[in-house]
Amino acid sequence: MTLSYDGTDFQGWQTQPGYRTVQETFEAAVAAITQEKRVRANASGRTDAGVHALGQVVNLYSNSKLSCSVLVRAGNAKLPEDVALLACDEVPQSFCAIKEAVRKTYRYVIYDKRTHDPFLRRYAAHCVSPLDVPAMERAARCLIGRHDFRSFETNWPNRLTSIRTVSHVSVKRVEEAVWIEVEADGFLYNMVRTIAGSLMQVGRGVWAESKLDEVLKAKDRVVAGPTAPPEGLYLLHVDYGS
Amino acid sequence: MTLSYDGTDFQGWQTQPGYRTVQETFEAAVAAITQEKRVRANASGRTDAGVHALGQVVNLYSNSKLSCSVLVRAGNAKLPEDVALLACDEVPQSFCAIKEAVRKTYRYVIYDKRTHDPFLRRYAAHCVSPLDVPAMERAARCLIGRHDFRSFETNWPNRLTSIRTVSHVSVKRVEEAVWIEVEADGFLYNMVRTIAGSLMQVGRGVWAESKLDEVLKAKDRVVAGPTAPPEGLYLLHVDYGS
Repeated sequence: MTLSYDGTDFQGWQTQPGYRTVQETFEAAVAAITQEKRVRANASGRTDAGVHALGQVVNLYSNSKLSCSVLVRAGNAKLPEDVALLACDEVPQSFCAIKEAVRKTYRYVIYDKRTHDPFLRRYAAHCVSPLDVPAMERAARCLIGRHDFRSFETNWPNRLTSIRTVSHVSVKRVEEAVWIEVEADGFLYNMVRTIAGSLMQVGRGVWAESKLDEVLKAKDRVVAGPTAPPEGLYLLHVDYGS
Repeated sequence: MTLSYDGTDFQGWQTQPGYRTVQETFEAAVAAITQEKRVRANASGRTDAGVHALGQVVNLYSNSKLSCSVLVRAGNAKLPEDVALLACDEVPQSFCAIKEAVRKTYRYVIYDKRTHDPFLRRYAAHCVSPLDVPAMERAARCLIGRHDFRSFETNWPNRLTSIRTVSHVSVKRVEEAVWIEVEADGFLYNMVRTIAGSLMQVGRGVWAESKLDEVLKAKDRVVAGPTAPPEGLYLLHVDYGS
């Protein structure tokens, strides 16, 4: 199933007792429709509190005889307005949304006009000085390829290895915002937000363009820029190959 | 002063004890900056709970010696994230934002894809069937000119007269939404929302295109369409002539 959600009012994807989470909200909606006691949804990756998704992918097992199209319609009628079920397909029982993800793409959105925009406060980071987008774009190029990204990981070590392959990075202006998009075979904890925070240092002229490459090579989180806030981050797309 | 606000979390413009309103929030921010006991802001018109503004105009009197540009900067630092102060100018003391408004423009936004969009739930009305925009556009033409709009006024009579002059109406598709824009020398209570609700009846094929003209001529609120919800409505612009 493919989901879109506005992460603002959720404490992230993963169920946590006492908090409103996307996982719990979604599982409850599906269970109500399929009339099962418990449905367990497995997402391609957790998103943190305040982080959005335009194309989160989850798999779940159900004994329901309902067709995929009925599930989509009933799901959207049941889900709260800040979550939408975009698509549903039957897959082999062995399918795992985490393990079989080949690549994921995230977008980070920064609004860089001096006066804040009341309509973007939940959906973009705000930078009060205009960003130098071409400089950010040039600085970001060093990230492409297979590297040890431990400089861009909060609380290293979280995973067995911090080596990832970034297949695509772009930095562009879209109307009054700057979009940073990163595609990789996997992401470390806070990786995109730390890349965004570091690129903002370049865009504001605080760092030279060459600094990003130095940060990458240092393999040390303390030299990277600040972790940019969650409201600018979107999980765009998860690719499962063919 | 020109203001923009996301109306979702406000109980409208006008101060009401026990509720969060734009007026009270804005007056408190300005009073804190000018260090005056009380500042009283007078808006071009009240907006209802949930209604947004991209260009609300307000006037206020202050003894402050602060320049307009300092007021804008300090105002935005003081205001909550869902209100922004876009511009400030000194005007003659006789200026009144209501009485001197020559024309106002409102936009009504409808999202008409079947599945709701989590990012638009606060910013557009949702119609689950696709709207016939050319039919809505043709139907809307009858509104242009000087007419008695009492069919489109909630709780008539609220004003001395329900005759207004609509100088411009447009209905167009903008990406996955439909925008209805109405410019007039003044608006009755819920007028744009009732026009939007009526045009949606045409767009969904429930009403013939000619029905809008019949509704206008009937001068009776009960024959018009439903009042469309507040989240789709934006006060765009207030025109004060030269």
